Formats: sequence, structure tokens, C-alpha cells
Amino acid sequence: MVPHLVTALKGPLRELERRILEATPQIERWFRLEWQEHTPPFYCSTDLRNAGFKLAPVDTNLFPGGFNNLSSEMLPLAVQAAMVAIDKYCPDAKNLLLIPENHTRNTFYLQNVQRLSAILRQTGLNVRLGSLNPEVTAPTEVELPDGSRLVLEPLVRSGRRVGVADFDPCSILLNNDLSAGLPEVLRDLHEQVLLPPLHAGWAVRRKTQHFAAYRDVARRFAKLIDIDPWLIDPLFAGCTGVDFHERTGEECLASNVDSLLRQIRVKYREYGIDETPFVIVKADAGTYGMGILSVKDASEVRNLNRKTRNKMAVVKEGMQVSDVIIQEGVPTYETINEAWAEPVVYMMDRYVVGGFYRVHASRGKDENLNAPGMHFVPLPFATSCNLPDANASPEVAENRFYAYGVVGRLALLAASLELEKTDPDPSRYG
Amino acid sequence: MVPHLVTALKGPLRELERRILEATPQIERWFRLEWQEHTPPFYCSTDLRNAGFKLAPVDTNLFPGGFNNLSSEMLPLAVQAAMVAIDKYCPDAKNLLLIPENHTRNTFYLQNVQRLSAILRQTGLNVRLGSLNPEVTAPTEVELPDGSRLVLEPLVRSGRRVGVADFDPCSILLNNDLSAGLPEVLRDLHEQVLLPPLHAGWAVRRKTQHFAAYRDVARRFAKLIDIDPWLIDPLFAGCTGVDFHERTGEECLASNVDSLLRQIRVKYREYGIDETPFVIVKADAGTYGMGILSVKDASEVRNLNRKTRNKMAVVKEGMQVSDVIIQEGVPTYETINEAWAEPVVYMMDRYVVGGFYRVHASRGKDENLNAPGMHFVPLPFATSCNLPDANASPEVAENRFYAYGVVGRLALLAASLELEKTDPDPSRYG
Repeated sequence: MVPHLVTALKGPLRELERRILEATPQIERWFRLEWQEHTPPFYCSTDLRNAGFKLAPVDTNLFPGGFNNLSSEMLPLAVQAAMVAIDKYCPDAKNLLLIPENHTRNTFYLQNVQRLSAILRQTGLNVRLGSLNPEVTAPTEVELPDGSRLVLEPLVRSGRRVGVADFDPCSILLNNDLSAGLPEVLRDLHEQVLLPPLHAGWAVRRKTQHFAAYRDVARRFAKLIDIDPWLIDPLFAGCTGVDFHERTGEECLASNVDSLLRQIRVKYREYGIDETPFVIVKADAGTYGMGILSVKDASEVRNLNRKTRNKMAVVKEGMQVSDVIIQEGVPTYETINEAWAEPVVYMMDRYVVGGFYRVHASRGKDENLNAPGMHFVPLPFATSCNLPDANASPEVAENRFYAYGVVGRLALLAASLELEKTDPDPSRYG
Repeated sequence: MVPHLVTALKGPLRELERRILEATPQIERWFRLEWQEHTPPFYCSTDLRNAGFKLAPVDTNLFPGGFNNLSSEMLPLAVQAAMVAIDKYCPDAKNLLLIPENHTRNTFYLQNVQRLSAILRQTGLNVRLGSLNPEVTAPTEVELPDGSRLVLEPLVRSGRRVGVADFDPCSILLNNDLSAGLPEVLRDLHEQVLLPPLHAGWAVRRKTQHFAAYRDVARRFAKLIDIDPWLIDPLFAGCTGVDFHERTGEECLASNVDSLLRQIRVKYREYGIDETPFVIVKADAGTYGMGILSVKDASEVRNLNRKTRNKMAVVKEGMQVSDVIIQEGVPTYETINEAWAEPVVYMMDRYVVGGFYRVHASRGKDENLNAPGMHFVPLPFATSCNLPDANASPEVAENRFYAYGVVGRLALLAASLELEKTDPDPSRYG
């Protein structure tokens, strides 16, 4: 099922998709050369927004948690891509330890863990699950909706290696975004590969660093296919030292909101876009759609009520927010059964392995759709992302998804540059 | 659509499939380690026979010509695998020259060329078609059944490089099996990668060398999963210096046929198989199902009539047969609509990218199905080959196809060892 695009694709985006389709050989070769210089993260997912006039990533996740939402037709691609990745890090690996998030009662999330384990097992690895959750003190069986079971085991550190009982892994795959901080048990490991590295966790990572890297990637890519980089790149700014409770940093927020709105207005005029500009204010570190504000005027961040201030001050794992990103709002113009939808692209190693739509029936086109609740409806892509049809219109699903795959991979490349730049031990990246 | 297995899967094969399923992690790791030592051919297809009691390759093609028969759902896998392969040989490649077979009027074959070109273009390459056919003296447009067009161009040699007009490729992909001999225009190339190498062509290659390499691979694999290697390996013998016209070498043929039939009988008794043993006599070099004889008694090769001798003496491109392989006949027990079918597995680099069934309504279960004519019905596999379901029975399609993919990859590995051994310049394989 392919979501309906409310606005007929016309104007700048249709032109962008046409350019992307025409330049397919140059684009694929460009990526091939980039991946000779840079190492992609083990896996990655990117939330995109298709505004009809602009197609841009709004969030890049280095611990993707929705593998269960990919269509099963696309799984062979994931297995093959995982084989390439494993080959790179640990070619003679027998054992892999997967460290999931701590919420052991979220069966949606645990289905993701199960799907991911199945993909990794199919590459020829023994996979076991080691939990950072202090409540997991013995092997704990969890039943999934389909009747199958997962076993979570307590981590065992012995010397400078980590594993679970009688299981010494060569590689450790984090599916836990480390919002709670860098765990002692994972530090200073000896001859064990940690994927992705610790500094990819939200204890260290910042969205502003990612989108700064993305801006560079987008500029180079835009030059390659001769487009305005704004068509694929959301404007952004950052404020540090913000305290929503104490109302510190309000001026920085307000002036950045104001300046971004002005820049967006200029761009909307340039392209004749009849929309009200908005910006998204959110924590610079963190995830799960917590602490996100959609703002249309600078005055709105000056007069936050107590409830909103409380909401903005704390994200996942009780982490206090002090760094904030202000990001150009990109409305979504895709709907499924009259609910707004946004595409999420999944990648392993350098390959797009699938995607799905996040759908939210009770949110608006200019709001965050990544909100917990019953209205969340995953919907897999109808076709793959690597088979555009140059003879068909840019609107057919294969071509729309190819463009999504290209922009998703731009964010992947940005994540790779970001991790290089923020690596505490840059020698590792040669 | 999945062919019907005439014999319920029981006895040795069901046991074999069970072993393969249970040992999936060991098998995948074993392949991973093998591919660290050996380079897979760029692409490869293998004809398998599922006899209910035995599952074995009977022919391995290094110039696969049926990419158009793969289901379109599996194409993304082929694109991804081709990306891996291109990365290995020519990471900064812009241009690839594809050299097809000479028969410019066979639209079935040309659809294969079109499909293969599309896969390669999607990896970011400019692909053009250079023909060895001396009749192609200028760019020649050929129309395909779907209305699209292919352009065949004459090869242009300049110095030690080959290309087509205004097109200097980094890599040259042969889809021509060189039955007519090693073409002068492709010899001694400078800094151009020829894939697969010249000695993979039938001018040099011998089936006996392939199956000798396969025997070694099958023995090691059988040890890994603790099975009798005969369950996956067809017995064979070779005769050189055969001249069917002059009736030279008849004694060698007869005694090898006799000896093989005796060995097969022993195995059939061991496993309680109630079948009449047969062997296949065919040219040791060559393809296209020409010059193939199904024999149940040694006397049959002693008293060949003139018509059969003529048929056996010459294969594709008028090549005279002097080397002959005598191979254990493996009956097929799969049928589609009451016609016998055999699976063909397609691989690129080290990955299974799909497969299809070759179906022939007017041939028997113990005959060669690779015969030209209107009864050839390609039928794509229903699911992929890399997603077995360990919790389901060995008979479900995913599991049968996984076993096919494993045995196909054993033949792929054998082809890699064979090419190493027959390489005139072994230093290239380091």
C-alpha cells in the first residue's frame, strides 16, 4: 500500500525526483566512492518528510527499533546486507551479543529484537541477548504475541571482555541508545567490536552535530545533481545551556526560532509556496519523540506554560535537557486513510533494506508523528528502494521510494561523518 | 508457485534437509570463512536435481543466461549483490562493457541481457553492449517483445584496451561462454578486468575439472554436517580422445559407464532406493544441452547409430567433442502440472539472488530438461533462498529453497576452486 500524496507532485519536488532518477548512475557511483572513504554505521534508520516541495530527513536513529515493521519480502535484503557488515567487522565470528533496550514489557519493541536476531542468525551467528536492565539478574523468558519466546540474560563482564553466561562474543551489537549514559560494563573492551561505537549513544551524540554533517553531505550531493540543497536539507540552529524549569536560554531559543522562520519565509517566497512556516524545538540528544514542540512564532517559546516546560525539560530515562535543536519544520503531505504519514528508511551497512510509514491519525501534518499511543500504524513500503524505473513517472512507487532511499543514504553518510568527527579515538577510522 | 514433489520427502533427503536446517549457523559461518580464502566468480548459475533421496548439482554455468527468468521481487537482492561485486573489482568504475552471446535474434536471451544490464546500471555503471559477432559492424538496434530496444555495438580494440566507440570500460563482463574459442580481441588486456576470466570459457573449461573440485567441496561440507557426501555429489568419470565419428574411445566410455552404474547400484541398495540407475554421457566442454545421452547399460554406448553419433560429436559453435564426462544420472522428482521440473539457482558474488524451475512437458524424469523448444517454461522460485524457517518442516518452500541455495553455493565454491586451479596466471588469486 502506498500512501496518497495530497499535493500532486509538482514544482520543486517533482523536479528533484526527476533529477535524482536521471542521475541514478552518477548518484550510485558517488555513494560507492564515498563508502571507500567512510565506514557506514552497522545500521541506521531515518525519518523523512515529503512536503511536496521538499524531501528531507528530520531524524536519524543509530539504534533502529522497528525491524519488525519491514515487510517480510524485504528480509532477504537485510540478511545479505548484514552478511556484508559482519564480514567487515568480524569475519570469523561465531557469537554475537545483542544488547536491547531495557523496557522488557514492550512487546512491539521485543518483536523488533526478535526480527533483528533472526536476520543476524541467518548470517551464521549464534545470537544471544544481554540486558543492561539491572532487574534482569537471571535468564528471563519473555513471551511474544506470536507465542514465540525471547530469553534476556544478565551481562557478564570477565576481565576486559563482556558476554553472557558461557558465551564470549566477538562482536556486540547495541540496540540500546544509551540515553541513560555510558554503562561501565561496556567500557574499555579488549578485542571485542562494539557496534555502533559507544559515542553513537545519546549520552554523547547531538542532533546538531548530525545535521551539521548532513548539511555538508547535502551541499556536495546538491552540487552533483545541480539542485538547491535546501530541497533536501532542513535548516537548523542550536542552543546550549537551556533550562526550561529556570527559563534560562529563552532568548537564544526565541532569536533562533525567529531567524529560522525568517529564512524559511524567504525560501517559501522564492518557490511560491503558500504555507505557514514552522519550526520544531526538541532536545539535541534523545529520542522516542519526547520533548518536541512545533512553533510558528518566536513568542511561543517565550511564554511556555508550566506543563509544556515540564514536558520539554526531561526526555527518556529522565535525562535533563540542556542542549536544544531548533529545526525547520517540514510538513508531510502523504496520507493513508486521511491520517498523516511519514516514511522511515531502514539501512544496514551501506544498503537500504526496506522501510515503512509511520502513520498517526490524530496528529497534524506539521506535528511530530513519532508519538506513543494506539494510533501508530506501521505500514511497510510496497516495493524496494533500489529499483527505480527511469521510463516511468517520478510519481510511481518505485521511483518515490528510490528517492527516499537516496535521501536516507545521505543521512547515513552524514551519520558516518558525524561518528568520525566525534570519535574520541579517531585513529580507529584510519 | 512451488513444484509438487512426487515422492513425499522422506528417507535420506528429508534427513539431509533437516541436517542443513539445523546446521544453518555453522553452514553460513563455514561459507563466510571459505570466501575469505577464495574469490567467487562474478556470477554463476547451477542446475540442481532433487531426486527425493539425493539433491545434487548437475551443471554449473559461469555465463548465466536466464536473469529474465528471476522473479522481479528478487531483483533488489541482485542489485545489492552486484554492488558488492563491483566494489571488489573496480570500485571507481564508471563504465562496464557487457559482451553477450552472438545469437542476436534470440529474444529470450536478449531479455536476459536487458535484465542483466538493468541490474548493473542500478549499481551506478554506464553499461554498453559490445558484440563478438562479426556481423555486428555498426551499432545495431534490436527490439524486444516489450517494445524496448537494445543496441549491440562492434568491439573496438585500441592498444591493449577494448571497448566500443567512445567508451573505455574499466571492467568487461562476459555473458558469452567463449565456446568458439578465446577471441584475439580480448587477449592481453591492460588494466581492464575481464569477468569471469578467459579461462572460465568453454574453450578452456572442463566439466570434469569442475566436478572434481565439487567432490572436494562436497566431502568437506558433508563432514561439517555429518552426512554421506554421495547425497549431494553426483559420481562421475571422464574419457579423453573420444571421436564419435571414428568410434575411437568407445571402450573407455563403456567401461566408465559400467563402473559408474555398478557404484550407483551399490548406493541404491544401501539406501533401499527402488530405481533403475542411469548415467548421463555429455561433452566435457560446452553447454546449451547439446550432445547429451541418457544411458542405462554400457552396451548402449557401444552400439550408437549414425544419427546419435552425429548428435554427440558436435556441440555449440560447431565445436568437435573429444573429451567426454560420464555423470551419475540424478532423476528429478519435482513436477509442475505433470511436467518434470528442475531448479536452477542464480548467484552473484557469494550471494544467492534467486532461481527458477526449468520445466519440460515432453521429457522424462531421467532425461536432460535443458532442451530447446517450446516446452521450456521458466518459473521463478516463490520465496528467497536465505530465509529458512527452523520451526517449520523441511518440506515448506522456504526450507526446500534454502537447501537449494546451500547446494548451489557449494557448486559456486567449487567453481571458484576450479578457476584457481586452472588459472594460467595463479599469482592473480594471491
